Amino acid sequence: MILTVTLNTALDLTYHVPVLRTHASHRVTEVRERPGGKGLNVARVLAALGHEVTVTGFTGGATGRAVRDLLTGTAGVVDALVPVTGATRRTVAVVDARTGDTTQLNEPGPVIAPAEWSAFQEAYEGLLGDADAVALCGSLPPGVPVGAYAVLVRAARAAGVPVLLDTSGEPLRRGVAARPDVIKPNTDELAELTGSHDPVRATQDARRRGAHAVVASLGAEGFLAVTPEGRWRATPPRRVHGNPTGAGDSAVAGLLSALVEQLPWPDRLSRAVALSAATVASPVAGEFDRTAYEELLGRVTVTALATAA
Amino acid sequence: MILTVTLNTALDLTYHVPVLRTHASHRVTEVRERPGGKGLNVARVLAALGHEVTVTGFTGGATGRAVRDLLTGTAGVVDALVPVTGATRRTVAVVDARTGDTTQLNEPGPVIAPAEWSAFQEAYEGLLGDADAVALCGSLPPGVPVGAYAVLVRAARAAGVPVLLDTSGEPLRRGVAARPDVIKPNTDELAELTGSHDPVRATQDARRRGAHAVVASLGAEGFLAVTPEGRWRATPPRRVHGNPTGAGDSAVAGLLSALVEQLPWPDRLSRAVALSAATVASPVAGEFDRTAYEELLGRVTVTALATAA
Repeated sequence: MILTVTLNTALDLTYHVPVLRTHASHRVTEVRERPGGKGLNVARVLAALGHEVTVTGFTGGATGRAVRDLLTGTAGVVDALVPVTGATRRTVAVVDARTGDTTQLNEPGPVIAPAEWSAFQEAYEGLLGDADAVALCGSLPPGVPVGAYAVLVRAARAAGVPVLLDTSGEPLRRGVAARPDVIKPNTDELAELTGSHDPVRATQDARRRGAHAVVASLGAEGFLAVTPEGRWRATPPRRVHGNPTGAGDSAVAGLLSALVEQLPWPDRLSRAVALSAATVASPVAGEFDRTAYEELLGRVTVTALATAA
Repeated sequence: MILTVTLNTALDLTYHVPVLRTHASHRVTEVRERPGGKGLNVARVLAALGHEVTVTGFTGGATGRAVRDLLTGTAGVVDALVPVTGATRRTVAVVDARTGDTTQLNEPGPVIAPAEWSAFQEAYEGLLGDADAVALCGSLPPGVPVGAYAVLVRAARAAGVPVLLDTSGEPLRRGVAARPDVIKPNTDELAELTGSHDPVRATQDARRRGAHAVVASLGAEGFLAVTPEGRWRATPPRRVHGNPTGAGDSAVAGLLSALVEQLPWPDRLSRAVALSAATVASPVAGEFDRTAYEELLGRVTVTALATAA
């Protein structure tokens, strides 16, 4: 199975309002709820691709129960979330029906006690025994040490399980130093990590900092990958219009699924690009359009780049 | 005991953000949860005044469980909510820390099935047997007939229980025709009911439509009351600055508590004005400042008005 870790799981709410105005009162016309946090999104896409997936991380309170209830209805996803005293956070995406624009409100998440963090590490090490690959995804809730991902990367490497890290800021900086197999930063995250706004230079610098492979997301332009086996640019056949929510999580699912199928890097990147674009194209935020995915998959351009000097 | 009815209960969330900008992403710095819906707010104030209170209405889903858990921690309030299949709605108040202004998002509430509405009526009639007074508060969830409050007013009157109705729009119009003992509209609700923007004229018109007593809220100016025993203006001693959230619910609690204590109208109005102002003065939205309440109570001006021609 593939293991995904979401330390800061969420109950994702989407509210539709006719027009959003600050300092006004709004009747919400449509409410959607789904399990959230990057690792849960990655798991949903992996399950849709036919993989067995186990999700872990923290869950608590009434919101945590709601997340678990919603996960129960997701075929192919095994719930191995670790209970905590605090309540799972909510995120609220307020969609303005007139413009289609979204205003996002993210709760910080529950405070994790030291004993809860220890209990998680124990559960995680047990789960690694059955894992073909692991993805460590998203922000850290309060109370979890900033070096948490470094600890989890080292445990995966010690267990011989390929590990992908998708986070930002100081948790990414610390995690990269523990030598994960893959990181998937966007250009902002990469610039924050390396200080360079040049994607080629920043990607190479991120490898020097410890990541074995760096797959930099260039948004609608696709990906730039620098790996031990070579360097590639992967580009979608056309610009896809839509909602980019979850496109990065779909890319992580594409990279991981192709990794466990032992596909070469160009095929991994094609899958990441096609899934990412098919997620932007989907009318439902965060889900991918299967027809678009299958159509796009064969038409991604992957170009090998010359090795850096 | 005093019975309060909240057909559209809510889990009230308050989010603090540094600055609210549409179409941006926000980290919520502070989250508060409390049981919501006007009748639950009224009950909390009544309990704080030392009354025995029972709350009823609908509750369902994970949000309904959260509301009940929070009510369990509220001393003096007995939970007689009726379970339904749908989930209790959330309301989200987003407070901009820079300006103090609030942007409000209200979910519509669960769809109530006809059998659930019947089950509620049965429970309500049972509870009326022990009630000294009843308050019917707030909006109707989808599925409840628009004439619901008229039905509940008639049942209270048949049981000989004084009934206060605090709602708006068509549910108010229908409810008033069933002859409640007291209504407590604000000037907008009164204008919508009567077509008149003159509070004196509109208040008299509302009585002609069926309400035995009309206590019109004039915001910071206090109240105008037209009752079978006389007409009064009740005015706070000074303009109180703060957050008006819940001030109307505190006024309802003041009117009801003084009614069951069989105080004369001027004392009922003093209590409503003082509680309302002490709620505006409180640093916590929807709660009243007890010191301010006690200080204001003796200083409310109640002036008898000449009887209408």
